[in-house]
Parts: sequence; structure tokens; C-alpha cells
Amino acid sequence: MEIEVLEGVFDANEMIAGENRRLLDEAGVYMINLMASPGAGKTSVIMRTLEGIQGHLSGAVIEGDVAGKVDSEQIAATGVPAVQINTGGSCHLEARQVNGALKRLDLEETDLVIVENVGNLVCPAEFKLGEDLKVMILSVAEGHDKPLKYPLMFSESDVLIVNKTDLIPHTDFDMVALEKTVLKMNPGVVVFKVSCRTGEGLQEWNSFLVKKVRDAKQAAACS
Amino acid sequence: MEIEVLEGVFDANEMIAGENRRLLDEAGVYMINLMASPGAGKTSVIMRTLEGIQGHLSGAVIEGDVAGKVDSEQIAATGVPAVQINTGGSCHLEARQVNGALKRLDLEETDLVIVENVGNLVCPAEFKLGEDLKVMILSVAEGHDKPLKYPLMFSESDVLIVNKTDLIPHTDFDMVALEKTVLKMNPGVVVFKVSCRTGEGLQEWNSFLVKKVRDAKQAAACS
Repeated sequence: MEIEVLEGVFDANEMIAGENRRLLDEAGVYMINLMASPGAGKTSVIMRTLEGIQGHLSGAVIEGDVAGKVDSEQIAATGVPAVQINTGGSCHLEARQVNGALKRLDLEETDLVIVENVGNLVCPAEFKLGEDLKVMILSVAEGHDKPLKYPLMFSESDVLIVNKTDLIPHTDFDMVALEKTVLKMNPGVVVFKVSCRTGEGLQEWNSFLVKKVRDAKQAAACS
Repeated sequence: MEIEVLEGVFDANEMIAGENRRLLDEAGVYMINLMASPGAGKTSVIMRTLEGIQGHLSGAVIEGDVAGKVDSEQIAATGVPAVQINTGGSCHLEARQVNGALKRLDLEETDLVIVENVGNLVCPAEFKLGEDLKVMILSVAEGHDKPLKYPLMFSESDVLIVNKTDLIPHTDFDMVALEKTVLKMNPGVVVFKVSCRTGEGLQEWNSFLVKKVRDAKQAAACS
């Protein structure tokens, strides 16, 4: 009985995710779904990414939070369009919420939409939003043992950004062990090691993202 | 329609939480529900707590994880009884899972059960397990702005343990701002500042806990 209810939820979500995909394709927009634990640095990575893509791509942000709007205010202060979603208790974003937010953005003027999901390593991995790329962040402070405990998120993500590398000397974090575990679970994952504090590694991530968006645009133009 | 389903889930959970409470009361056992984001240091705090209460209280642990059993193995290696619950995808523990685990422990030989909830700052706050005390951990690395984003967890917790205080010099963490925000939302919360790495602050937490358990035993004996 419970399983039936859940399947219903997933089916409905997938249908609206498909609608989001059509909206984005029509306007030639690339969307990433950014997922992480609370405090892993989602908003910091977004701020650094928006800086990094300036002059190359025009970005917009959809902010998902259980409550509050501190992140969207921080982003809007930089002049980048930002829409806040408050889930009102729910621990993940669903496609219908993103659908509402996409309709409030000027997609014709946008190359890249970054969706900041609710801080949670479990449920966001189960809900498609219509994104091109699933990106997860793991903070060094969380520890290198997390893939075994939260396998779906690490298996589903196309990109793993390991953030707060400046904290490595002050922790027991083992990057080799992390990469070994993650690559075994998800051989295709692309790993970036960054510090939003020092700026280390961010250029590689930004260049990768700009190329991804341009390649997608080119592929769409040829099809 | 959705709300009805949720209410049903919460009602059923609350009924079993009540049953857990009776089981614990009959055996004179105190139970804490330990909640935090992934990587905030739940297992480290448990290991340090078990060390700290040695000779005063006899402890047991119920480990909740989406997958894996690394934490329960680590705890069982110290000789403390540990039961692993794998939620198989679900992002929080429910009372029925804890009920099954309690029945596998020798409660007559136990003073304190520590339940390590799934790493998640959202949903665990909504599900009662029959606990005496809700304890949450916030790691310094997560940032002092978390209460505004995850208000239910910070409002519902009886105790807030701020862990990884040794990282404060390497971050922008503002303890005064954190305490101000949390105490406004939850004036009764007791805050401990600890580092499982250096041991700082753990004695205060352990003494508090031992006293809580003894007071509860005494109150039960008098009633």
C-alpha cells in the first residue's frame, strides 16, 4: 500500500520533470540540480560559479529551502535573477515546484539555471527535476566515509564537488579513500576538489560547466 | 489528499512511539534521539559519550542509516550492545523501526539507549521515537546560519551540541550569532560546545547526561 502511494508520487513527479525539460529545451537553457548536506557550501559554490561564468553565460538561480530566503537574497544582491522556493517542511524539491519557479524566470535571456536543492543527502536524489546535470557537494568536514552511508546520492550524481579542501590539514579526511569508494560506485562521476574560501579548484569546475552548457547548445542546434 | 496520508503516517508513528515509551519505562531506561546532518559527528559524539559514562551508566546504541553498518560495527567493537537499522532509502527513523531494535536489546541491563538517527536536518525532527531527550549536533563547518534554514530541528531539540569547535579558527563560524538565533527560537535549549577531536567540552555534556538519566530514574522510583 505504501509502495503504491510512493510510486504514484514518483510517476507524477517524473511527468512534470519532463514538462520542465521541454520548457528548458525550447528556450535552450541548461539546468543543474545542486544537492548536498546542510552547510556543505551549496550557496558558496553557486556564488563562485556565477562569478566564474560571468561574460560567458547568463545564469539564474532557483533556491530551495525548507524555510527562509537568506540565500536567494544574497544571490539577488549580485544582480542575478533568483527565485526562492520554500518547501514548508518537505526535505527535497519536486519537479512541480521547479516548474513554478521556471515560469517566473525569463528563460529566453538565460543560458544556465542552477537549482539549489534542500540541504539533504537522501531524498533529493530520488526526485528528478528535469535537469541536465546532477551535481553534489561533499564538504571535507563531513568525512570521506559518506558514500557508503548515502549511496544513492553518490551513485546518481554526474559531478562530485569536494568543497572546503582548505580544511584537509585540520581533519582526518582521506581524499584517496573517498575517490576510490565513489569511483567504484559510480565510475562515470567527474570529481572536482575546491575551496570556496581560497578559490582553489574553482576554475576547473567553471570551465567544465561552461563547456557543458556550450556543448548542449551546439548539440541542440545540430539536431 | 496528501495531507491526509501524512497525518495517517504521523498518527501511526505516534502510537508506536507511545509503545516504545512504555517498554522503556517498564525497564527504567532513558533514551536519547540524536539527530544531525551527515558528517556532523554523530558517531564520534556517541563514542565519546560511551567513554564518558563508563562506570556510571550502562549504555546501548541503535544505529540508523540508509545503508551500511560501519557505525554499528565501530560501536560493537568497544563491547557496547549495538543494533543496526537500515532504512533502505528512507531519510529518517520511525518509531516502529526503533521498536524492533529495542526488542533486540537487553533493556533490564541498560540505563541509556542512544539512537543515532539518519543524517538529515529535516525529517527526523518530525518523527517521535518515544525518546526522553532530543539532541541535535551542529558541526562548526556547517555554519552558524543553519537555524533559519532548518527551523523545526533547532526548535524541537532539547539539547544542541555544537561539535568541531577546533575548526572555529579556520572558518567564519560565529558562535555568538548562532546562540542568539537558536535561543530566540528555542529559549529552553541547552547548548554544549565540544570537539570530539580535542575532547573540549565533552565532560560538561557527559555530566549533564548522567544527571538527566539519574534524575529520571529517581523520579520514576518516587512515582
